[in-house]
Amino acid sequence: MTNPQALRPQALHLADLSTPCLILDADRMDRNIARLRDRLTDLGVTLRPHLKTGKSVEVAQRMMPTPQGPATVSTLQEARRFADAGVRDIIYAVGVSPAKLPEILTMRREGVDLAILLDSVEQAAAVAQASREAGHAIPAFIEIDCDGHRAGVLPQDGDRLRAIAAALSQGGELRGVLTHAGGSYDARGDDALRACAEAERLAVVTAAQHLRDGGFACPVVSVGSTPTAHRAQDLTGVTEVRAGVFVFFDLVMAGIGICRHEDIALSVLATVIGHQQDKGWILVDAGWMALSRDRGTAGQAVDQGYGLVCDVEGRPFGDLIVVQANQEHGVLALRPGSEADLPPLAIGDRVRIFPNHACATAAQHDRYHVVDQGSDIVTAIWPRFGGW
Amino acid sequence: MTNPQALRPQALHLADLSTPCLILDADRMDRNIARLRDRLTDLGVTLRPHLKTGKSVEVAQRMMPTPQGPATVSTLQEARRFADAGVRDIIYAVGVSPAKLPEILTMRREGVDLAILLDSVEQAAAVAQASREAGHAIPAFIEIDCDGHRAGVLPQDGDRLRAIAAALSQGGELRGVLTHAGGSYDARGDDALRACAEAERLAVVTAAQHLRDGGFACPVVSVGSTPTAHRAQDLTGVTEVRAGVFVFFDLVMAGIGICRHEDIALSVLATVIGHQQDKGWILVDAGWMALSRDRGTAGQAVDQGYGLVCDVEGRPFGDLIVVQANQEHGVLALRPGSEADLPPLAIGDRVRIFPNHACATAAQHDRYHVVDQGSDIVTAIWPRFGGW
Repeated sequence: MTNPQALRPQALHLADLSTPCLILDADRMDRNIARLRDRLTDLGVTLRPHLKTGKSVEVAQRMMPTPQGPATVSTLQEARRFADAGVRDIIYAVGVSPAKLPEILTMRREGVDLAILLDSVEQAAAVAQASREAGHAIPAFIEIDCDGHRAGVLPQDGDRLRAIAAALSQGGELRGVLTHAGGSYDARGDDALRACAEAERLAVVTAAQHLRDGGFACPVVSVGSTPTAHRAQDLTGVTEVRAGVFVFFDLVMAGIGICRHEDIALSVLATVIGHQQDKGWILVDAGWMALSRDRGTAGQAVDQGYGLVCDVEGRPFGDLIVVQANQEHGVLALRPGSEADLPPLAIGDRVRIFPNHACATAAQHDRYHVVDQGSDIVTAIWPRFGGW
Repeated sequence: MTNPQALRPQALHLADLSTPCLILDADRMDRNIARLRDRLTDLGVTLRPHLKTGKSVEVAQRMMPTPQGPATVSTLQEARRFADAGVRDIIYAVGVSPAKLPEILTMRREGVDLAILLDSVEQAAAVAQASREAGHAIPAFIEIDCDGHRAGVLPQDGDRLRAIAAALSQGGELRGVLTHAGGSYDARGDDALRACAEAERLAVVTAAQHLRDGGFACPVVSVGSTPTAHRAQDLTGVTEVRAGVFVFFDLVMAGIGICRHEDIALSVLATVIGHQQDKGWILVDAGWMALSRDRGTAGQAVDQGYGLVCDVEGRPFGDLIVVQANQEHGVLALRPGSEADLPPLAIGDRVRIFPNHACATAAQHDRYHVVDQGSDIVTAIWPRFGGW
């Protein structure tokens, strides 16, 4: 897991790090990546990892099938950064606004096959016009709404699909159809997740058929969410799967049942700074600035507060969670109803906190401190970026 | 409001900016600062602004009474950055861990009067020992718990206060007592806020008296929260007031009644990227990455979702809020029960979104685009920093 390009401090230990900071367990990450890659190989589809979770060249290199991609991004900043690192096959998977087209054309002219997403005739007409003016066809996906949770065209709305494809064809390129089963985050149980995955598949396959019936080629049929990627039984008609959070996993994914706590590769290292003994509180120096405000487990069967607290080697204490978060203070306490004892953590002791949502927690930090599982040696520091 | 040190683009307009991005209305900010400063002058106390909201040298320079301070910070990163910009009087107002003392000593030796916070005999003993070993007395405040919401010693616990002061006096320096009425964020109505302010005052004055009765000098008596700073009627015995979010204000503060919507200086500029007409949804390119996951108004009388949507000049449409946020998607819709019409926003149109919590939303960005009220010209770009 070492990377000669990344900074490799000499014998830096977890105890040497200023807290709060972000810890990445490389062994767990590598296992998580191998697990999904093997699964999709068996299903006969390509993995197009979503790089928005890591926002790191080093993490991306481990997730992608090749150094050139394929990849998915959520911002043009990600597209630029990963293109600069050599990635050549990218989908920008957020509906495009016309003002972003000049920058997209610039990246395409530099040799990056950057494709975009849209779900309206207005967008398609703008892309076609920009393509004509540039003398360069911009490839676009039509976003399909498979579960009503966000954007996209309904898969059975053949008229609208063909109208968009027709508008796009006046200069642009229809690359395919794409959907994201965001609703799978609310599904409970493997049967429900398998049903989400099949609904996701059926939505894009149906939409692709409507387009092909209208005479439009639709070479790429793209689905993706970590829960459905891990529960799909059959992906007939699908050409690629996008997923992101599978690389680190988190408490939301564990709550859905897609991973175990011992698969979670990301944690925040924090230091005990006080106690309120009468309340059963331990205070640490990781608040919402370090953990994020994400409360993704609040609606799940087990509410993990702002995070599940582990010892410094990454083993959960059990019922100890972050019950409250201020900007730079986290309040640790036993979850309601617990009969466990509060661990004897003294001022200066360190803990690791699993996040609700890896994408949100990682976004609060500018670097990963990489360790091997069970080791306290920081083997590398990998930068991560933000912005748009 | 111009600053010769900051980058001043030539005739950059809001329409030229890539979205999402952060907009700072300098006129509103300046009025907010003047309002609190005038108020505290009338009450006879010093303003020691909390710089964690802005995390910007340019914003800090406008908030502080002098270029050298006084100032409050929430991380050592803030202390370093503001010290590098010339600030010399700083309180690091999060309970200290012993591992942070060497860096604190380094900054003190460089001429920064950096004081720290603690609430236990263990911390006081560690500070005293580090002070003795360095031959340099580190000044510390004892944190007082005025409302049970976080850390601190109960004000009536004279024995514990004196034990901490005694431990600290073996090498360190007792600078004073400090409290933060975080509970004021949950208070409703001016009477309740005035009661919070009086409880905050009474807590530190009582604690200071216990220490003085024990023979310990307690020169500084520090209170602070934006709601109590704006509602305190009498600050007898208090020497300084800390507050941060007053500089920008936000929807939480408006919900408490401390500001009006037209005082909110911070907003996120976003672009319309789609519609789901059957659901009454407008999609924009600002999700939780740009807005933060903060839902501080969720428990208030008016839930503003992930933010209140304004036209591009910063005037609220009325009932249009961000009802849902994915990483890079925001879903705009009328608030439940509204009888208003959805504004006719087309793809490519721009909106500004007021944040629930200015500290959390600003933290998602690396720069402020500064405008004057009602103007679309960006007069400056001010960097902001993060990290610890």
